[in-house]
Amino acid sequence: MPTIGVVDTTFARFNMGKAAVDEIQKHVSVRIIRRTVPGVKDLPVAAKKLIEEEGCDMVVALGMPGSKPTDKVCAHEASTGLIQAQLMTNTHIIEVFVHEDEARDAKELAFLMEQRSREHALNVVKMLFKPEQMIREAGTGQRQGFEDVGPARM
Amino acid sequence: MPTIGVVDTTFARFNMGKAAVDEIQKHVSVRIIRRTVPGVKDLPVAAKKLIEEEGCDMVVALGMPGSKPTDKVCAHEASTGLIQAQLMTNTHIIEVFVHEDEARDAKELAFLMEQRSREHALNVVKMLFKPEQMIREAGTGQRQGFEDVGPARM
Amino acid sequence: MPTIGVVDTTFARFNMGKAAVDEIQKHVSVRIIRRTVPGVKDLPVAAKKLIEEEGCDMVVALGMPGSKPTDKVCAHEASTGLIQAQLMTNTHIIEVFVHEDEARDAKELAFLMEQRSREHALNVVKMLFKPEQMIREAGTGQRQGFEDVGPARM
Amino acid sequence: MPTIGVVDTTFARFNMGKAAVDEIQKHVSVRIIRRTVPGVKDLPVAAKKLIEEEGCDMVVALGMPGSKPTDKVCAHEASTGLIQAQLMTNTHIIEVFVHEDEARDAKELAFLMEQRSREHALNVVKMLFKPEQMIREAGTGQRQGFEDVGPARM
Amino acid sequence: MPTIGVVDTTFARFNMGKAAVDEIQKHVSVRIIRRTVPGVKDLPVAAKKLIEEEGCDMVVALGMPGSKPTDKVCAHEASTGLIQAQLMTNTHIIEVFVHEDEARDAKELAFLMEQRSREHALNVVKMLFKPEQMIREAGTGQRQGFEDVGPARM
Repeated sequence: MPTIGVVDTTFARFNMGKAAVDEIQKHVSVRIIRRTVPGVKDLPVAAKKLIEEEGCDMVVALGMPGSKPTDKVCAHEASTGLIQAQLMTNTHIIEVFVHEDEARDAKELAFLMEQRSREHALNVVKMLFKPEQMIREAGTGQRQGFEDVGPARM
Repeated sequence: MPTIGVVDTTFARFNMGKAAVDEIQKHVSVRIIRRTVPGVKDLPVAAKKLIEEEGCDMVVALGMPGSKPTDKVCAHEASTGLIQAQLMTNTHIIEVFVHEDEARDAKELAFLMEQRSREHALNVVKMLFKPEQMIREAGTGQRQGFEDVGPARM
Repeated sequence: MPTIGVVDTTFARFNMGKAAVDEIQKHVSVRIIRRTVPGVKDLPVAAKKLIEEEGCDMVVALGMPGSKPTDKVCAHEASTGLIQAQLMTNTHIIEVFVHEDEARDAKELAFLMEQRSREHALNVVKMLFKPEQMIREAGTGQRQGFEDVGPARM
Repeated sequence: MPTIGVVDTTFARFNMGKAAVDEIQKHVSVRIIRRTVPGVKDLPVAAKKLIEEEGCDMVVALGMPGSKPTDKVCAHEASTGLIQAQLMTNTHIIEVFVHEDEARDAKELAFLMEQRSREHALNVVKMLFKPEQMIREAGTGQRQGFEDVGPARM
Repeated sequence: MPTIGVVDTTFARFNMGKAAVDEIQKHVSVRIIRRTVPGVKDLPVAAKKLIEEEGCDMVVALGMPGSKPTDKVCAHEASTGLIQAQLMTNTHIIEVFVHEDEARDAKELAFLMEQRSREHALNVVKMLFKPEQMIREAGTGQRQGFEDVGPARM
């Protein structure tokens, strides 16, 4: 049975980790290990520890960068670290970030955070259990949280 | 027989991986291994796994960064990761990115994505099979997707 | 008994390291090792040395980036280095940065620097001794130094 | 006899690699190994391979970043990769970049690309054969391609 | 007897390395090894070689980034590399950068470059010989080259 790691933050304004765990459990039988850290910059090492110390086969790293310029820089640093953690472990870490200013109000923010967490949790399931399904969706303009854009036609 | 890895995304709005595979197969007999991941930030580890776990001699990593400022940052993170993956494996990964806002409309976007995918697939073939041909084209202002610019004359 | 490393700077305008040490000692019995370096860019290697040469189980890295554009770039470089140091050691380094221009005057600056240092010191205690408490706070909009934002409701 | 690696791009609008090779051969007897890659982002791994697989003692990496914002980001990614490649190999890679918009027209561009390629090739020769000469030039405001600025006087 | 490495550039407009060497020798008896490279982007590997190949216990890396936007990017890349070099060696490299546009004229520039070089050389001496003195200066608003800012009071 594969193990999926789920790590989120106390900074975020929605329990993204819970939504991801719930969605994964709806679709497959896996072992799930969850961690929560203060902010997005703490996600990379937490994800790497889940892989190297807890044997996770894939990790979902969820966070909500704030709307100030400094927050944008933090998000960039966290993303860079998440990519580096993947390269050091040869293991996918699916980043699920919702920027606080992507939504018009708190209600839409909560909705978007739940949707994107669930849809990316599904990506993890597909990548682990049906990688050929991913190839079938190549170039189809998939989006997580918002509606899909679809392919560009010539 | 060399092995070429091809990895693209479900986020992109054109099946870039398919175009790259088709172009490579037109020119040489190689083993091709294909993967599809959600977005450009998932490309670096996917490419590294193709090299280290599947024995690929070179990889083409294709993606379509979106047009929002956040998307530009994602593209930068992905590119940084792709360079890092190359340095960790001593293996070329040719990045083929078409920014969604490089094209005026969906039709031109699809055209550009196909062209650049094919032209960079050719670069991979040249680098693997005719590296001396690359040296002959040094400083000639080659472009992929758009028309070549040509050399600057004194 | 776990060991916590505390490293701060001479550039900062408040003794953040002292506040962090004091807060940790109020809550738990641990061995604390303290270092001070010139500026935030010296924090990453100092933190890594505390982990690898002094056996620290977790590190708090405290600094006050200045308000000029160059200072913002320094902060970004320091943060990137702190994440890299964590990935190289599989150990959390909690970054506590207060940007000089987050506060309106010197008085508020000192207040904010003390508060954030203390609240993040508490995070370190929780992560080391009560990780399940962190999970209970997932998605609750915690902030350090300023008031908590709280969760977004649907 | 030392070995110098020279790697340039097909994207550039002047044969920078040829100019560098020519300049090196005017001054010293060394073994030179040349490679050409598509663009500046392909330089880091090419340079690292020249060092680790071909035994180069130093490498000159030449490229011409374009004038669009995206090109500037590419240049930054390439430079970051070149520094990383050096740190991974403990070997100098001298970066010779001419931004397309440093010159007013194609004629000046070609001139600048030739000059800077030659002057940096000379730096490589000095660093390999006369490092004490470099120390004598410390703080003298040397520039490559344009006129030297000279030292600032108190 | 500890060994201190000093590396500076030919691009800079003041002999920063000489000032640093002079200041160190005024205060302590150490072995000093000096190198000069073309520009700030060549500093990281030079510093790492001083540590790993010449046994330096600490390194001072001095440079003067120019005033153009491109120069700022170069400075950022160099700083990132210097932090990385420190993390790879568990050794402090004190970065001493004076941006050309920090000074109003050449005279002030030379003055600032000398002052900052000397004051950071002193930091190296303190970090190597009196680390407890650094802790006593924590949070006191130290600046190098310009006047100290001092602590913020509540």
